[in-house]
This record gives sequence, structure tokens and C-alpha cells, in this order.
Amino acid sequence: MGRVYNFSAGPAVLPEEVLEEAAAEMLDYRGCGMSVMEMSHRSKSFTDIIEGAEADLRELLAIPEGYTVLFLQGGTSQQFAAVPMNLMKNRVADYIVTGSWAKKAYKEATIFGDARVIASSEDATFSYIPDCSDLPVSPDADYVYICENNTIYGTKFHELPNTKGKDLVADVSSCFLSEPADVSRYGVMYGGAQKNVGPAGVVINIIRNDLISEDVLPGTPTMLKWKTHADEKSLYNTPPTFSIYICGKVFKWILAQGGLEAMGKRNAEKAALLYDFIDQSTLFKGTVRKPDRSIMNVCFVTGDDALDAQFVAEAKAAGMENLKGHRSVGGMRASIYNAMPRAGVVHLVEFMDAFERAHK
Amino acid sequence: MGRVYNFSAGPAVLPEEVLEEAAAEMLDYRGCGMSVMEMSHRSKSFTDIIEGAEADLRELLAIPEGYTVLFLQGGTSQQFAAVPMNLMKNRVADYIVTGSWAKKAYKEATIFGDARVIASSEDATFSYIPDCSDLPVSPDADYVYICENNTIYGTKFHELPNTKGKDLVADVSSCFLSEPADVSRYGVMYGGAQKNVGPAGVVINIIRNDLISEDVLPGTPTMLKWKTHADEKSLYNTPPTFSIYICGKVFKWILAQGGLEAMGKRNAEKAALLYDFIDQSTLFKGTVRKPDRSIMNVCFVTGDDALDAQFVAEAKAAGMENLKGHRSVGGMRASIYNAMPRAGVVHLVEFMDAFERAHK
Repeated sequence: MGRVYNFSAGPAVLPEEVLEEAAAEMLDYRGCGMSVMEMSHRSKSFTDIIEGAEADLRELLAIPEGYTVLFLQGGTSQQFAAVPMNLMKNRVADYIVTGSWAKKAYKEATIFGDARVIASSEDATFSYIPDCSDLPVSPDADYVYICENNTIYGTKFHELPNTKGKDLVADVSSCFLSEPADVSRYGVMYGGAQKNVGPAGVVINIIRNDLISEDVLPGTPTMLKWKTHADEKSLYNTPPTFSIYICGKVFKWILAQGGLEAMGKRNAEKAALLYDFIDQSTLFKGTVRKPDRSIMNVCFVTGDDALDAQFVAEAKAAGMENLKGHRSVGGMRASIYNAMPRAGVVHLVEFMDAFERAHK
Repeated sequence: MGRVYNFSAGPAVLPEEVLEEAAAEMLDYRGCGMSVMEMSHRSKSFTDIIEGAEADLRELLAIPEGYTVLFLQGGTSQQFAAVPMNLMKNRVADYIVTGSWAKKAYKEATIFGDARVIASSEDATFSYIPDCSDLPVSPDADYVYICENNTIYGTKFHELPNTKGKDLVADVSSCFLSEPADVSRYGVMYGGAQKNVGPAGVVINIIRNDLISEDVLPGTPTMLKWKTHADEKSLYNTPPTFSIYICGKVFKWILAQGGLEAMGKRNAEKAALLYDFIDQSTLFKGTVRKPDRSIMNVCFVTGDDALDAQFVAEAKAAGMENLKGHRSVGGMRASIYNAMPRAGVVHLVEFMDAFERAHK
């Protein structure tokens, strides 16, 4: 038995300490005689777990007063519908399309109203972030939507768009808690846990309170109405208890690492190791415009599909899993989320170096 | 450290063997060097897990050809909307209301069309199942809906209603896999995992294929359309991977116990131990009409609120957790799902006997 370096885009690597604790507590959570999986979501033990998780998340992100935190189900794909159902009062919304997920969110919104693409980088396989300093934001737009870090393409908004006063809604799944963020600049920030935060099956929404109301689109299912969950502190129905418990452990782990400042610094260093190597390489080439590079998902190619496949296979044999790029980009993708240790990135760079020498 | 007897209504007790295996595999699932939580849902390992879980479930329930199995998120509460959104072609549906969950499902359906209550037992705190042999089923009803086992009230449909040719839709959460069932009698059977089957965060739908179509109500979110998930074998988006993995282990555990015949026999015996004691007791009284008693959730009272509270507190001190009844019934409720060992029920009966002697 040995742990591999897991570069999966999600579900993804989790801190070993978190997994060890979860294993140790599996049959008896802290002397209560049962697993967290077996616990009533109304019990004192689980109340402490979910309230502790929320408190730690609030501390990590310095979430301002006036924002609600929700732990929900259905992933971001379900929020693609929940966002317009909860927010599209004028039935108009502006989308900035920088990848497959933003595009899916946009398409879902067209079911409910006049969703408009006000910027896109689809013309170049989403390899860059468009200039968003002066976009034609619709005067009656209910919100402006982005996917802040594009997992598949390896880009990130390093500056938030100028929304001209409209509320910003951001899917932050693959950059959630990877570095500090100013929550007050968002109307809604939401992310699936299964990248930086925990297991699949929970999505975390951080919503400015005035955007949570009974006034949703007609025909909105009760479970998609944010107010349903806000009123009941995410306990309207049975929440994904075990997943929330793991998220809570990850929050504590990040705090113990020094919080988001420290995490962001470490992540930037890890990414720089990899990008610096790519930039001096004569074999490997980054696929993303440099200023828009993600520090979470690093995409690169050799330009030769057969060689890419050989690289992925040999890396796997050397203990590095899931380096194959998404089919829409090809080549390789290294997802180096919070829980990927620096040693994993060093190992990858050394392997790339050796591979390059062997194939010169 | 000691395990308690956990009579929780859900999330609920799981087989110890399942928890032990999950703990042992937490850092390295079968030599693949990562936890199931860290695994891509598109990986070979996870494909084997979800396909294995489905195959075992099909074997357990002898699911006929022509039925699709889906692993979904959002719990039964979300299916309360999904059912009408997918099935209410005529915008008419008939509901048999035998408890809070059926009532919630009915109310949710009224958002989408003309949902009608064709029978109810609310007149007597849902303590019985109405005669459903000749109900005024609407000629244009798209389906007839029941909650087959009522967790809160401790009743069960021991005979399915006569739907007069309409498709039966049943929420089977708290009786799922507790005994054999004839799937061919249902149009849709669905249940939350967190009672008999696994952790919270996954709901399992078994749907006759002709009820899965693109022809859903206008405004149905993509994630609530069953066809979305059927087309992608529950992998349209990232499913709750770890929860599905635990469900798969529980399915294997039930098979190892002898399948649903053996499980049903054992559950009937456990329930009889408890009901037989209640029926001869001069202190405890069952709250449900005898022919309608659930073998999963056993509700009883002393008739004295203070004494009930004392019983629950003393039982807790004696290693039996979560015996307090739901606030709408009061008294006590012992949920004795598949994973509750016979010894737990024996222990409870002995404790009730001692309590009765002490309070004569």
C-alpha cells in the first residue's frame, strides 16, 4: 500500500490527516458510540459539526455580516438553475462564458429568461479570460455571472469583472479556499466541494442576505429556493451529513496551515514551480495565455498526441495519477489543489525534466 | 469506546462490517493509492463501484428488464418536485396522504398542477392506513402517489393501493430493502439512502423506462429531469461518490445475509419481539392500528409525557440512543432498520420490561 500523487481535477486529493481522522472516527465519533454517517442530523453531535464547519469557513474567508452560508446538494449543475430561479426578477442576466461550465450555466439560464452572453473566449478554445473592464452589461440585468476558475481549460479571473453595479454571481468550485477572496465583492459565491474542500455531494453557497427571498420564479421547486435552506440553516431536509463533516475537517486543516494567506502563498509557489519549468521547456508548452493562468489547474501539451499519451502512462507508472487533460483540450492537466503537497509538484517537474531529456 | 444501540429514524445505524471496511479502505482503496472520496467519478475504480452497486441492487430486488436505476442527490424532498415535473402530463395527480412526507409531496405537487388528496388518515394523527381498495382515482390522473412506510407514525401499506390502472409512485425511503418487493407493480419507486441503505446524500430511483422522457413540464431544471441522469447512467455531473460506495457495501452485506427474503424474515421477527411485548404490557401502548404497523418504525407511549421522557433518558444511559418519538406523535419510536441487530431489540425489550416493573 502506498498513496499516489493524485492530480485529479475532481473529486480530488484530500489532506491525509483528514482521511486518517475520518478513518479513526468511523465506528465511534468521539465517544458517542456511532459513526457520523449514522447520526441524526438533528442531534447535538451533528449540530456541533455543521455549526463548527460554518464558523470555520466564516473565519477562513472573513465572510462579512449579512451573508448566509448554505450547504446544499445537487452540485453546481443544480445551482445553474437555482441562480436564475432565485435571482432573475427582470428575467435578464448577463453571462461571461470562459469555459464549458459557464456555458452550461448560461444555457440553463435560457430556460428561465433572457440570458445574454456579454463576453466569451470560446473563439480560442477558452484559453484566455476576456477583457472585462468595460463590458456591455445589460441595464436591466439581474446579475452578471462568471465561472471564476475554469477547471478544464486552466484559466482564472485574476481580476473580477466590472459589473457596472450589478451583482456578481460566481461559480468558484475549483478555486474555492485556494487563496484569500473578498466576499463583499460577490452577490453569490458558490462551489462544489469536490475540488478543494471535501467529497462530492455538497455544494457551498455564500449569499448576500438581500438576495435570499420568497420572491422566486413561479414553478421553483421548494428545494431550489435558497430561502428554504436559509430559514432552516441547511437542515430543511436531511443534508449530506458525512460530506459536511469532511468539509469541516478540511476547513480546520486549512486553518492549521495558516489560513488562506498561507494557502495562497503555498499554492502560488507550487504553480510557479510547474509553470516556470514549462516556460523554459522545449518539449512542453502551456495552453493558456500567461496572465490568465490558473494556480489550481495547469494545462500543457507536447504538441504530439502519441507523446502526450506516453507521458501520461509513464507518469502513472511513476505514481502520478490523473494527468490526462480533458478531451476538449487534450494533452495534460495537473490539478494541484490545496491538498496536493509541494513534494508532488516537485516530483512531477522532475519527471517532466527526465521525460524531456529522454525525448529530445 | 463502545458502540451504542442506535434507534435513530435516519440517518440511522449501518452494519458494523460496512463501517469497518470503509475505515480500512479510507486512505487506499484496494491498492489504487487513494480514497474513494478522492477518485474521479469517471475513473475505472469508481465505474466498477457504481456499476457493481447497481448490479447488486438489481439482484436484491429482482428488478425487471425495462426499469432504470438512478443514484441522485437532493433527497426525497427534491423528488417531491421531480415526480410532478417528470410525470404530470395531464397536470393531474392523486395523492394518498398517510403522513407528513406524503403531505409534503402533495403540497409540492400543487405547485405544478391539480394534485388531489384521494385518501387521508390525518383525522387520526396518521395512525392507520386508509382502505385503498376502491378509491376515487381521477380518470385523467398521471399517477397515484403513496409514501409506503411512514417513518414518523410507524405505519406501512401492507397492501399496495388499487390504482385502477394508473401508475403507482412510491416513496419507499424507510422500508427500502427491508423485505422483498415486486418492482413491476410500481411506475416509480424511490428512497433516500439514509435509513436502510447508506449515508445521507443519495436518493435511489427505480423508474419504468417509459416514464423517463424529454417531455417534462416547461421550466424543469436539467438536474430534475430524470432523462438527464438516465442518459448518463447517473454520471451527468459528479455524483455523491462516497455515499454510493457505502450503499454498494450495504447491498453486498444484505446479499451476504441471504438477500431480501432472509432480511424480511429477520425484520419481521425483530418487530414481533417488540410488538408482542407492547401488546401484553400494561404500561406501554402502541400508537398504530395493528394491521398497519410498520416493521421498521415502532411507535409506543406510556400515556404520561413525564414518564416517556424518563424512559428515553434512562434508555440512553443504558446504551440505547434516539428512542424519543417525533414531536407530532410524542412518546417513543424505535427504528429497527436492517442493520439493527436482533440483540439490540432484545436489549430494548428487556429494558422496557424492567422499566415497567419499576413503575407499576
